[in-house]
Amino acid sequence: MTGGLLDRRFFLKKGITFSVAVLASEPLHASTENYRQPWMEKPGEPFSNYGQPSAHEKETIRWTMGNSMAKGNGVSWTPLHDLEGTITPNGLHFERHHNGVPQIDPQKHQLLIHGVVKKPLIFDMDVLLRYPMVSRQCFIECGGNSNTGWRDEPIQTAAGYFHGMVSCSEWTGIPLKILLNKTILEESAKWVIAEGGDASMMNVSIPLEKMMDDCFLAIYQNGERIRPENGYPLRLIVPGWEGVVNVKWLRRLHLCNTPTMARNETSKYTELLPSGKARQFTFVMEAKSLITNPSYGYQLDKKGIYQISGLAWSGRGEIVKVEVSADGGKTWVEAELQQPVLSKCFTRFRIPWNWNGESTILKSRATDETGYVQPERKELIAERGKHGYFHYNGIVSWEITSKGVVSHVYA
Amino acid sequence: MTGGLLDRRFFLKKGITFSVAVLASEPLHASTENYRQPWMEKPGEPFSNYGQPSAHEKETIRWTMGNSMAKGNGVSWTPLHDLEGTITPNGLHFERHHNGVPQIDPQKHQLLIHGVVKKPLIFDMDVLLRYPMVSRQCFIECGGNSNTGWRDEPIQTAAGYFHGMVSCSEWTGIPLKILLNKTILEESAKWVIAEGGDASMMNVSIPLEKMMDDCFLAIYQNGERIRPENGYPLRLIVPGWEGVVNVKWLRRLHLCNTPTMARNETSKYTELLPSGKARQFTFVMEAKSLITNPSYGYQLDKKGIYQISGLAWSGRGEIVKVEVSADGGKTWVEAELQQPVLSKCFTRFRIPWNWNGESTILKSRATDETGYVQPERKELIAERGKHGYFHYNGIVSWEITSKGVVSHVYA
Repeated sequence: MTGGLLDRRFFLKKGITFSVAVLASEPLHASTENYRQPWMEKPGEPFSNYGQPSAHEKETIRWTMGNSMAKGNGVSWTPLHDLEGTITPNGLHFERHHNGVPQIDPQKHQLLIHGVVKKPLIFDMDVLLRYPMVSRQCFIECGGNSNTGWRDEPIQTAAGYFHGMVSCSEWTGIPLKILLNKTILEESAKWVIAEGGDASMMNVSIPLEKMMDDCFLAIYQNGERIRPENGYPLRLIVPGWEGVVNVKWLRRLHLCNTPTMARNETSKYTELLPSGKARQFTFVMEAKSLITNPSYGYQLDKKGIYQISGLAWSGRGEIVKVEVSADGGKTWVEAELQQPVLSKCFTRFRIPWNWNGESTILKSRATDETGYVQPERKELIAERGKHGYFHYNGIVSWEITSKGVVSHVYA
Repeated sequence: MTGGLLDRRFFLKKGITFSVAVLASEPLHASTENYRQPWMEKPGEPFSNYGQPSAHEKETIRWTMGNSMAKGNGVSWTPLHDLEGTITPNGLHFERHHNGVPQIDPQKHQLLIHGVVKKPLIFDMDVLLRYPMVSRQCFIECGGNSNTGWRDEPIQTAAGYFHGMVSCSEWTGIPLKILLNKTILEESAKWVIAEGGDASMMNVSIPLEKMMDDCFLAIYQNGERIRPENGYPLRLIVPGWEGVVNVKWLRRLHLCNTPTMARNETSKYTELLPSGKARQFTFVMEAKSLITNPSYGYQLDKKGIYQISGLAWSGRGEIVKVEVSADGGKTWVEAELQQPVLSKCFTRFRIPWNWNGESTILKSRATDETGYVQPERKELIAERGKHGYFHYNGIVSWEITSKGVVSHVYA
């Protein structure tokens, strides 16, 4: 009735005792012969000041894609299909590059706050480090993530090279509401233009109200200083909003009465609708989910128990439900959500699945705390047309053939 | 009355408008001249497949300490004094080395479960990857962390080189209760000997009851596969218990009726008490806290507002309170705890402090959900004597001189 999906806590319930038996059909070697390995025969490698992944994991990398027409422009994708849990390690956080990675000297970096203010202020990094900080685990997703979903044919590539312009870190920094307050703001200030200090000088307009709500100036990512490609030494974090407004290498906050209509909020990051009009300032990343295991490139060996695992997130708050279908959307079963579920943060979902060895289609569907339900692709296209490029969050379908091959389908 | 400590939400409360003014005594450059930096004049560096920290952060490393008498034996310390938030990046997770870092081929690594079982089982990594997983953010702390606290004179070194045998990650892996169940266990099984697959073959005894409670076999750390020095490809996680039982490179779980009395639970990881008897199997890491900023090596410029920030953790569960004293312990003020507070996990605490420029002593004191309160050093020594070496969790005192120099004192 459910395509083989099992109760989400099937293996964790007391009294379930056949988990080992289920997998005992796998090759289990009952002998301990030849059990001594070469790395037990000699001392290991020396200690390191800064660790690196195992040489056996060299394929777990950010796949990079450069724009041949504009050096320094491109994408580094997070390999979501190789990862588990909710944290993205710093070395694998996605990047959308506009003009390469600047090597900024933090002693020379400054933040200017000016415009519709009573007095312009400039902060050195040393001064900023004395301000109160908060930490928050949250995702950042490029507004253009998953954009090949708008194409007529489903792209055949690993999940991370399709959806991997999203990552999740614990960011630590200074709440904007501490810096932007009545002491310095003029009453007419309504927007903030945030500008980056690299050679692309990315600039975008953000409503002051959002800045005062939950935005902050991050200095640390997953405990250590932010890495160069993610905005060292200072990045604006705008929780739940499209990546482009999370300005890296932040050098300037310009208070204004209106948005600035910069290149990246007019010619880019807008969406042409079927009506011929375009959506603009579509900041919020709506609820989305994705099965990462199994996904394109995985090979299922034989029928039997598998653990379906994936990620869900919403720019509007907490994920409250992820349903999984193992029969192409006919029936849906609620997956287990890894606790704690945090607002505007990756939520890992998992559900066990007893595959009967026949061809089928897996899907996942996220619901967030506002009641928003991730749409099927055809619903999304009916609403938005196919020329939007940005904000693709349709349900992802993975077809499993009877040979256990996983491919991407529209279904 | 409180040595200058301010209400913990001082800056975050609505209507507090003088935070900028407070720091406006810092050098703020009101001009925008010379504001264009060299890294804005030319394209940045190329994209990378796996990112690294900024060259300007090259001093944020694991300081390593080798045993000259036994190559491969030593410590790599987490630089807690340089970090913020609660996650330790994988490259900086502490290590206690017993015989170097083995380079294990995961295709050849196996886990054997045997002893008092109905049938011995061996699992390849590929098989383990099909089992149900959970993710959990938790700390691991070496039982010998902070052991110089037992010395007669306070050690003068950075906080991380004194207390940095503790780190915190999001670990993902298979709950032991799924593998160790009635199907395979004999009723008389009471202990599990866990053994590592490196050249030191670390082995330790762990009560079966704890294994069935919250232990798991970790395969991922902060999203990616565990790194070699932290146990690649498989590590036993024993939440809240001393680091040595969180066996790295796990190759064997031997079910027994009694503990095995291995070297690292008899000649090591036991504590001689004033009575002449020794404590053994002191698994739980009791509540502890530490101000990381300011701490030894920090230099306070001048009187004014500073943000005190630190870490607290308890092997018994959640931290419920961290109090800070800015007058050597005469008065205490409750610090803000960064949410979410998770069980057996780093908890970041912060409190603003208006330093009057005079010499004083900063302390922090953690309380956990069981009501356990971190003891003053003298209380700890009165109870345990000075020959224990392990499980030092006394309150840490940082003296600030009138010149803003921070040193470690017993007070």
